[in-house]
Amino acid sequence: MPWWKVILWLVGLAALFSLGIIVGHFAVPKEADQLAPQDLDQELLEAVMGQLDASRIQENLRELSLKPHMATTLRDENLVQLLLQRWQNPESGLDAAGEGVYEVLLSFPSREQPNTVRVVSSNGTTLFTSQHSETNLTGEQGDPEVVQPYAAYAPAGTPQAVNGAKHGVAGLLVYTDPGDINDNLRFPNETFPHSWALPPSGVERGSYYEHFGDPKTPYFPATPSAFRLENADIQGFPPIPTQPISFEDAQKLLCNLKGSVAPDSWQGALGCDYRLGPGFLDNGHFSQDSEVNVTVHNRLELRNSSNVLGIIRGAVEPDRYVLYGNHRDSWVHGAVDPSSGTAVLLEISRVLGTLVKAGKWRPRRSIVFASWGAEEFGLIGSTEFTEEFFSKLQERGVAYINVDIAVFANATLRAQGTPPAQSVIFTAAKQVPAPGKSGLTVYDNWLQYYNRSSPAHGVIPSLGTLGSGSDYAAFVHFLGITSMDIAYTYDRSKTSARIYPTYHTAFDTFQYVESFLDPGFTSHRAVAQTVVNVLLRLSDSLLLPLNIGDYSETLRSFLQAAQDKLGPLLGQQSIDLGPLVSAVERFERAAAALDQRIETLRKNLSDPLKVRMVNDQLMLLERAFLNTRAFPEKYYYSHVLWAPRTSNVVTFPGLANAYDEAVKTPNDPSAWAKVKKQLSIAAMAVEGAAATLEPVDDL
Amino acid sequence: MPWWKVILWLVGLAALFSLGIIVGHFAVPKEADQLAPQDLDQELLEAVMGQLDASRIQENLRELSLKPHMATTLRDENLVQLLLQRWQNPESGLDAAGEGVYEVLLSFPSREQPNTVRVVSSNGTTLFTSQHSETNLTGEQGDPEVVQPYAAYAPAGTPQAVNGAKHGVAGLLVYTDPGDINDNLRFPNETFPHSWALPPSGVERGSYYEHFGDPKTPYFPATPSAFRLENADIQGFPPIPTQPISFEDAQKLLCNLKGSVAPDSWQGALGCDYRLGPGFLDNGHFSQDSEVNVTVHNRLELRNSSNVLGIIRGAVEPDRYVLYGNHRDSWVHGAVDPSSGTAVLLEISRVLGTLVKAGKWRPRRSIVFASWGAEEFGLIGSTEFTEEFFSKLQERGVAYINVDIAVFANATLRAQGTPPAQSVIFTAAKQVPAPGKSGLTVYDNWLQYYNRSSPAHGVIPSLGTLGSGSDYAAFVHFLGITSMDIAYTYDRSKTSARIYPTYHTAFDTFQYVESFLDPGFTSHRAVAQTVVNVLLRLSDSLLLPLNIGDYSETLRSFLQAAQDKLGPLLGQQSIDLGPLVSAVERFERAAAALDQRIETLRKNLSDPLKVRMVNDQLMLLERAFLNTRAFPEKYYYSHVLWAPRTSNVVTFPGLANAYDEAVKTPNDPSAWAKVKKQLSIAAMAVEGAAATLEPVDDL
Repeated sequence: MPWWKVILWLVGLAALFSLGIIVGHFAVPKEADQLAPQDLDQELLEAVMGQLDASRIQENLRELSLKPHMATTLRDENLVQLLLQRWQNPESGLDAAGEGVYEVLLSFPSREQPNTVRVVSSNGTTLFTSQHSETNLTGEQGDPEVVQPYAAYAPAGTPQAVNGAKHGVAGLLVYTDPGDINDNLRFPNETFPHSWALPPSGVERGSYYEHFGDPKTPYFPATPSAFRLENADIQGFPPIPTQPISFEDAQKLLCNLKGSVAPDSWQGALGCDYRLGPGFLDNGHFSQDSEVNVTVHNRLELRNSSNVLGIIRGAVEPDRYVLYGNHRDSWVHGAVDPSSGTAVLLEISRVLGTLVKAGKWRPRRSIVFASWGAEEFGLIGSTEFTEEFFSKLQERGVAYINVDIAVFANATLRAQGTPPAQSVIFTAAKQVPAPGKSGLTVYDNWLQYYNRSSPAHGVIPSLGTLGSGSDYAAFVHFLGITSMDIAYTYDRSKTSARIYPTYHTAFDTFQYVESFLDPGFTSHRAVAQTVVNVLLRLSDSLLLPLNIGDYSETLRSFLQAAQDKLGPLLGQQSIDLGPLVSAVERFERAAAALDQRIETLRKNLSDPLKVRMVNDQLMLLERAFLNTRAFPEKYYYSHVLWAPRTSNVVTFPGLANAYDEAVKTPNDPSAWAKVKKQLSIAAMAVEGAAATLEPVDDL
Repeated sequence: MPWWKVILWLVGLAALFSLGIIVGHFAVPKEADQLAPQDLDQELLEAVMGQLDASRIQENLRELSLKPHMATTLRDENLVQLLLQRWQNPESGLDAAGEGVYEVLLSFPSREQPNTVRVVSSNGTTLFTSQHSETNLTGEQGDPEVVQPYAAYAPAGTPQAVNGAKHGVAGLLVYTDPGDINDNLRFPNETFPHSWALPPSGVERGSYYEHFGDPKTPYFPATPSAFRLENADIQGFPPIPTQPISFEDAQKLLCNLKGSVAPDSWQGALGCDYRLGPGFLDNGHFSQDSEVNVTVHNRLELRNSSNVLGIIRGAVEPDRYVLYGNHRDSWVHGAVDPSSGTAVLLEISRVLGTLVKAGKWRPRRSIVFASWGAEEFGLIGSTEFTEEFFSKLQERGVAYINVDIAVFANATLRAQGTPPAQSVIFTAAKQVPAPGKSGLTVYDNWLQYYNRSSPAHGVIPSLGTLGSGSDYAAFVHFLGITSMDIAYTYDRSKTSARIYPTYHTAFDTFQYVESFLDPGFTSHRAVAQTVVNVLLRLSDSLLLPLNIGDYSETLRSFLQAAQDKLGPLLGQQSIDLGPLVSAVERFERAAAALDQRIETLRKNLSDPLKVRMVNDQLMLLERAFLNTRAFPEKYYYSHVLWAPRTSNVVTFPGLANAYDEAVKTPNDPSAWAKVKKQLSIAAMAVEGAAATLEPVDDL
């Protein structure tokens, strides 16, 4: 070969080799590129929602509500095993599941000596005795495990009097009026099983403990060795014997009272004028000088109550927890409360567990599933859990989703939550078809039932606020974790019932749900779809879908209410709302600027630390509103924005409550000093929260 | 070309192209690889240490200590400007610097009516009057800005008595005995300026407020609008007029007292027998029935005090803060306290700032520099800062380094800190040559002076614990941030002085430092080198150099002490230490397992999120020991392991203190209940901390 041919060949070969290098470098992806951050997969999300099966939810509910399963009873323990079995199933279970057991103080009536309300004549003859159980209308009420209606934690005793209020109330009777619960229905042929209304013999059970968590171990997890208060030192139990009765029994007492007629707002639907006493009517069922005797034999008992926990481990950020839970214990069969929620929980965990076990999916963050124990006695299982894992959860908890009663009724979605939860719930609700409303989404349907006008968003569904009605309480108030509660609920144009009528009675059964609340279980499925959508968005999105801007709107409205309703009188006391104004303005600026930075970041999400840093700001915002010294007398309440508010001014609760107190004693400077202190607490919380939203390397 | 040749050629060309692809894919790094995480650069570290200049530290000190600069005085404000100027310097400053101003309650004597201690005869003649100022020995003591010796926050008043203890003490005199501070030296010709000893006229100033932080705004940042206690409602001020005096004045009083001789341990080096009174000696300077009159005119004043803050922004994790600070305010010229620390701070910020401004370096994490105000009055500036930025700092604070007095004496390093700080201080000290000890490192030298035997590490230098002696207090006790304090200190074989003798007097001057504490400023430089080494390790290492295993050793020793010293009597009271045993064992297991996982991770640090997740566990461990309800009566103390311990048993302070109280009233069940409660608090903290160290996706 001539030299020029050799060179030509060599050049050609070199070019080919170089081309190979170029192709190899640019066209063949390396492992690092293959790991480029994956965001929420919309197809998977659709698939998951599609796999949620109404009939499986129905079968879950049938099994969960088969027998009464009050906290720590044998059936409650059986359901612990059921949960464990489901979550440890090799095909459809979670990565791991286990039990957390706490030794907690519960309160039970006596089987041997049932609580009784009697009318006793002056010579000691019993003229009337209250029912010890509800009428067996559908079989379930005859189950020997149905607990007698009682007021948990009410002390034992046998007070006897009529209208004892004049000289100090000695005992308390509680009943649910058909006017409040039944849209006035009160006869057997118009109530369950003929309608959803409460039968005359139905009695609402409940806990009468003022705080939440295990009463003997406030702020300690109730492990066997934990420090325990003496029972006598426990604060917050009712001071006097208390007993709930049916409206059938209440009618016999109330419609026979004499005395002046009670105010209009006290009247109800028992078919008589309610009078204030004292004493019974001259021409009534009882002799005039008869008295009411209340005999309560409740006993306090230390019992072992279990939480069941399960986890799907996060693939990328396993140290970020999206928690989703519901309680397991009921008062009786608890088909609605809480088993409707648990039936949904089990269906969601089955669908997600199946994907995980098949190796088809794993979320970015960890998902923790929880079945709490002893909620009915005061949110005990969930509270003990937050005490035991306080640090870990405060550091790593992204959000807590609660679905207690999944379906109160089948009209519309109802959601409660702190403001950062609003947008993700809306987004989810827009992707779920509304049951029974062809062409409408759950969001559209919700908007028709409950809406408000938002300065930022226009007309949107109303997100409720979180009180302490279910297991989210310790998460939001004690831990400061963004929380929400999701359910399907009433058409308020069709009922004014305070809650579904058989609440906490022996008539809350599977048949009740199937016949009246959600035939076909389509509302259950809609709740499951909404929840799983929220759950996946929180656990699988690169950027957390927590819209902190929605806190700006809340704070501005709190401020506006304070200025409008409290401002004038505060001004007279030379108390200036200025610090709160600047704090809220600073928060608004910081939130808006962070939103801007997030929009910029959204264009390039390749740096995992940049994403994590922003997510930490979003996740931890709620924590910044905690102040453990703000409400020292209220166990667990640290969240400066959502603590209980006795005032009807919708503003910072500590400020509003202190103001209400000061108004009662306007000449007491110490009362106004408390207002000033609460004003500082509110302003400090908002300033501190704003500081966490500002650029992380600002001074 | 025959077909087989063509094929041969094609195969060859294909092979070459393939080889190119392989080379291109595997041998040519992609951008992702080029961004492989950078760890601490040892060369840079050496260079930085080398650039720290003793003579610049010396010149810093000369300027800082030129005039008295008590908190909020004009000179203190001038130094604020000096700090800002340095930190905003375009060549050697930080990325940003600014002021944080708080309106705080300070206490000052009256210029017009100096505090006075007098001996007054029964006819009212003044027989003795205490000095109102220290003798002007070197010029500085004559500066009109030298504040009269006083006890800050002691109330005004004019008690008069001798040995009032018998009927309730009415006033209090305080002095420093030459036996405690001067190795018995007490004559002018053997004290400063002839030696480092305290001249006879020297008086130690100080704050007598029991808590720390601004007294009017506990738990609130002292912004102008913050809620403030009425002065009368402030807890923790001395109840009676109090005045410090010189030992020269004290001698005149003490050596003339009559009465029985005081116990041996009360005797001192004033050259006479100390007696208990009451009354003066028959043959002494004063008539027997003379009385001592103390006149205190201290006034409380609201003043604006500034912190100065500066930041070097982190390149990779700007939301992780390594904080390094010292106070700026002194009692008088404060050359040692605090200007020796500030001189070092300014030199470190100059060297690092110069690198940043030149674009040569930027740390992985943010470094925050702080010059705190009003420390001498009770750590006020630093405490208000932690209140204002509580959430942000708790979320993001990696560690706090305090260098208050940099050089107490020039013999050896002395460090205090929480256990996770130990290893990084040791590593740093091993890289710094000990001044004046050719061939020895600071570590080797330290080991010779103060050491202990560690079960895990053998013989190592003793790391002291952090009380509340300087600005680290709010960081460790209130925020739960790993903290440390670093200085050079005494050869204890050469002096038994409680602290350097001119502490808080007008003799703590530049000349004092230059002549007696650190001629040549080599100890200052060694402190600076050690500190910058710690600072860079904390801010620039990929994996945080916090050795959480060292907490296992602390917890085990606390447990052992509880078992040995408290166990027997607790057993008699049926109080079982078992829960604490299991908690400590769990912690030990969790820490050891985490160390294992870290060793594995160390082999491949390419995943930034894996590194961040482990670092979060290390950073947040200290937080897990906080319990805001553990010591409600002690402002800011939440750290269950390091709260003040009155007991001399070195164990969990709450447990030890409650035990000591219960032993005093062994038949009081409520006292033992408090012991049980503190036992639960300790066990819960250790369990919770262990839970944060366990794998993040464990249930």
